[in-house]
Amino acid sequence: MDSKTPSTTHLTDAQRIDWLRLIRSDNVGPRTFRSLVNHFGSARSALERLPELARRGGAARPGRICSEEDARAEFAASQRLGVALLAPGEDGYPPRLAEIDDAPPLLGVRGVRDVLMRPLIAIVGSRNASGAGLKFAGTLARDLGEAGFVIASGLARGIDQAAHRASIASGTVAVLAGGHDKIYPPEHEGLLVEILEAGGTAISEMPLGHVPRARDFPRRNRLISGVALGVVVVEAAHRSGSLITARIAAEQGREVFAVPGSPLDPRAAGTNDLIKQGATLTTEASDVVNMVEPIMGRPIELREPENDSLSHEPDAGDRARIVGLLGPSPILLDDLVRMAGTSAAIVRIVLLELELAGRLERHGGGLVSLI
Amino acid sequence: MDSKTPSTTHLTDAQRIDWLRLIRSDNVGPRTFRSLVNHFGSARSALERLPELARRGGAARPGRICSEEDARAEFAASQRLGVALLAPGEDGYPPRLAEIDDAPPLLGVRGVRDVLMRPLIAIVGSRNASGAGLKFAGTLARDLGEAGFVIASGLARGIDQAAHRASIASGTVAVLAGGHDKIYPPEHEGLLVEILEAGGTAISEMPLGHVPRARDFPRRNRLISGVALGVVVVEAAHRSGSLITARIAAEQGREVFAVPGSPLDPRAAGTNDLIKQGATLTTEASDVVNMVEPIMGRPIELREPENDSLSHEPDAGDRARIVGLLGPSPILLDDLVRMAGTSAAIVRIVLLELELAGRLERHGGGLVSLI
Repeated sequence: MDSKTPSTTHLTDAQRIDWLRLIRSDNVGPRTFRSLVNHFGSARSALERLPELARRGGAARPGRICSEEDARAEFAASQRLGVALLAPGEDGYPPRLAEIDDAPPLLGVRGVRDVLMRPLIAIVGSRNASGAGLKFAGTLARDLGEAGFVIASGLARGIDQAAHRASIASGTVAVLAGGHDKIYPPEHEGLLVEILEAGGTAISEMPLGHVPRARDFPRRNRLISGVALGVVVVEAAHRSGSLITARIAAEQGREVFAVPGSPLDPRAAGTNDLIKQGATLTTEASDVVNMVEPIMGRPIELREPENDSLSHEPDAGDRARIVGLLGPSPILLDDLVRMAGTSAAIVRIVLLELELAGRLERHGGGLVSLI
Repeated sequence: MDSKTPSTTHLTDAQRIDWLRLIRSDNVGPRTFRSLVNHFGSARSALERLPELARRGGAARPGRICSEEDARAEFAASQRLGVALLAPGEDGYPPRLAEIDDAPPLLGVRGVRDVLMRPLIAIVGSRNASGAGLKFAGTLARDLGEAGFVIASGLARGIDQAAHRASIASGTVAVLAGGHDKIYPPEHEGLLVEILEAGGTAISEMPLGHVPRARDFPRRNRLISGVALGVVVVEAAHRSGSLITARIAAEQGREVFAVPGSPLDPRAAGTNDLIKQGATLTTEASDVVNMVEPIMGRPIELREPENDSLSHEPDAGDRARIVGLLGPSPILLDDLVRMAGTSAAIVRIVLLELELAGRLERHGGGLVSLI
């Protein structure tokens, strides 16, 4: 286990159903989920207050709240497929993933959970990879596996596939963009079966039946880097998806590794750029191991809860002032608090209301804008 | 011109002959030359004292001193070939080369001198280069030429040749390991003629007639990096000569650039290693230009003369003590001075005597040992 933090959380069945209802309700993402639970003390209380908050935020029509029935149905279907829905801090929830700002409140884990508690390295790259790139990805995954690391990747064609294949024996994690029953690309269902049979896992934050759309892949990529100590980009052209993963990885404080290539090879343009920007040039497993070994000993820092007291309730004047300061251009939350001349707790509640009304967009890095 | 230092030196004909005699005498290298001139005030005085110094240093038989006749003959032959013998600080002596510790006291310059006073970038790499490497070297040399830089290289096969060819029009400098009349490899004599006809130059510190031996190439490599603001290594296997040039360049305080390649390409192993060690990853001319532009404005730092007074003369006790402290293992000059319990000037003179007697080896980095 790469964490000094033992599993500390265990949800009751009733709590798990409440959590599932809340995260599956309209306009509730991982960050909103966390704010709601911090503010109202529990998912159950938050669910009760959702309609009122959305109305205050100016929702044209009330957002759909996931019913207890629907949540129980998803829970049962997940169990039938062998998918556990785990909360941060529970055994099987990757400890490093729990660190990130927008960690999924419930992660669907299929297969043997142990691999998710071991140190993970992500390997990603082009779907349209060269023979040399595929070969290198396989060698690197095998060598890192022998060094005791579990390999995480996105089950895509090309580099992902080569990395998974070479680490089936030592431990590999497929991070899905859709539901556990909607594997993409479909021809990799066989690879996934092999991974699961060999004691690996698949993880997803999406409900069963969710077919992955283009916008789900960048969102999924934060999980690939989130579970890992570091991300190795093997081949990547300019403006490729792997570079998004690398950027997110850096924002999450993960180590970024990139495999160099000839300046005349367009499939190395992205990785060479990453190295120019500070990624660690990687030609062999020891380049990765030497860099992450000192990190592995460090305890994982859990997020501070916001501790908003229920006694803070915005009034109509607060709402008008804060909405007036917002616009289509993203603004820093800290700037908003300063300009609003009120407490951070009040600002956060107004933003929650707007979010639940579908009127607020969060951009990461503490930036928000009106939709 | 990339220097803020105007040419300040001009040797008389008689001085030039004395300098040539001294540097062509046995056991006198660039560092010894400088110590001798600093100590005795002129090459002429040093020549007069050479036999006595070598005797004091314990020479078994006196070293050969270059006669005035031989020096005049070399001088005349050089002139016939269009080779000027220039001292540091004279117009046509590359200003940055004058900075280095072991700058040639006289540099043979053939061709138009102007290019040597412009900012230079060295491009080096494998003789046995790949097609991609050759193509990249040519593109880089052409782009740097268009950006106003003169390209320096070693006239070898492979990368050197590609770099010279692509910069013939914009300005190129061939740095030779042998005498100006002993071109290596011989099949590049035509390339050299093209370079000279287009207004480029060739430089060498070796006498006419000197056929380059294996050990002359590393020595020559210090001139390739010495004339330049930075050195770009295009392709290099592990333990290749280009890596020696890169190491010397770093020791000289030059920028080191390296072109990445696939980890599966042995011709990129050396350049990838250089990047791991801190060289700037280079995929286009702007990577070089952005790094050297801030340096170009800086004035060139000239070495401090040692200012040994003639009044310091070692006695037999000093000599015995210093020789006793020396052995086959290299020792730092500074440590030697401290352990000898005498002045740095006395130690330097004893070392000079030993050097002229062929008994001392200097290793660079201030290290000396007995032979």
